[in-house]
Amino acid sequence: MGDIDQRRHGCDPRVARSRSAVLEATGQLLCEEGFPGVTIEAVAARSGVAKTTIYRHWPTRAELLIAAFRHMSCDTPCVDTGDVRDDLVAVVQGLADELGSERWATALPSLVAEALRDPGFAELHSAFVAERRQKVLEVISRAVERGQLPADTDAGLLGTMLAGPVFFRTLVTLEPLDEPGLAGRIVDAALDGMRASRVPG
Amino acid sequence: MGDIDQRRHGCDPRVARSRSAVLEATGQLLCEEGFPGVTIEAVAARSGVAKTTIYRHWPTRAELLIAAFRHMSCDTPCVDTGDVRDDLVAVVQGLADELGSERWATALPSLVAEALRDPGFAELHSAFVAERRQKVLEVISRAVERGQLPADTDAGLLGTMLAGPVFFRTLVTLEPLDEPGLAGRIVDAALDGMRASRVPG
Repeated sequence: MGDIDQRRHGCDPRVARSRSAVLEATGQLLCEEGFPGVTIEAVAARSGVAKTTIYRHWPTRAELLIAAFRHMSCDTPCVDTGDVRDDLVAVVQGLADELGSERWATALPSLVAEALRDPGFAELHSAFVAERRQKVLEVISRAVERGQLPADTDAGLLGTMLAGPVFFRTLVTLEPLDEPGLAGRIVDAALDGMRASRVPG
Repeated sequence: MGDIDQRRHGCDPRVARSRSAVLEATGQLLCEEGFPGVTIEAVAARSGVAKTTIYRHWPTRAELLIAAFRHMSCDTPCVDTGDVRDDLVAVVQGLADELGSERWATALPSLVAEALRDPGFAELHSAFVAERRQKVLEVISRAVERGQLPADTDAGLLGTMLAGPVFFRTLVTLEPLDEPGLAGRIVDAALDGMRASRVPG
């Protein structure tokens, strides 16, 4: 919906400006106050755009919130360096940069909480996950083709071992994501494990 | 606070019953409706306990919510089988069982969202994380002592590689946690990695 809407209004710079001001204001309120703070009144006050204009673009509060989430997403490109470690570090680093931004760090838990109860947010949440998962699966499938990962690699599991720690730090331990070398340590742990010795069965 | 309170009232079975009914009702409402649905009115209606009684035990809604979260926690024991894999599988399985329960799966995202804004919830959230982290660190430190893990094992990183995937499935991909063999696959991936071949630098 957002894209069609954007194309339709893309030609009028005034409309584009006020759309962008509304989405910015919504994103700010979301971070500062959480979901309950995002009312059409508050967004109108913050953005300086009239409530009637806001309702014309986003007939419901949920549609506005979903558009604001999409507006916050950034598209990190999928790199291809030829080396599985470097490619995976780039993907994990891209995810850490995105989730580590103050905006996502505070908005993501609300999105997850809302997705469990509202089908519109559930759809947005699924799209958010699927887009990011696609990138790591692409890198893994290239590495398998090149023989850098075994042919029977469980790509879903490896993706979980790479993305899990980043989301864990964002959503659970609330540890910083800009720790130097973090992406590399996660990728090395996922690729090489811990050199454990098993007690003979 | 909860524990002292429980000891103080533990001797009167009527008080214990009504406390438990209130915490049960709060937990149910939390799962069904999320944080906004947990009002003292709704808890009184669901539990059959008078509002004045509820306020006597938990003067604020936040205190009631925090007590309900503690009431939901279960204490899984820390096993010691002598084998690092078996011990870690037990810890990961315990976490998956806990987070996979319908109650936690729906309540945890709200707890995280609230922890970012409210110091009381932030404290509860930290305690929740610390208690669970302690278990996995204990198992890792025993395995290092036994020589089953290298002496320079980064215990924090290994803990993240084990817990991250479980929380990731609960909070991000919303995949089921009762998939057979899941805990074992996560532990094997964390201990042994993916047998990747690196392109020579």
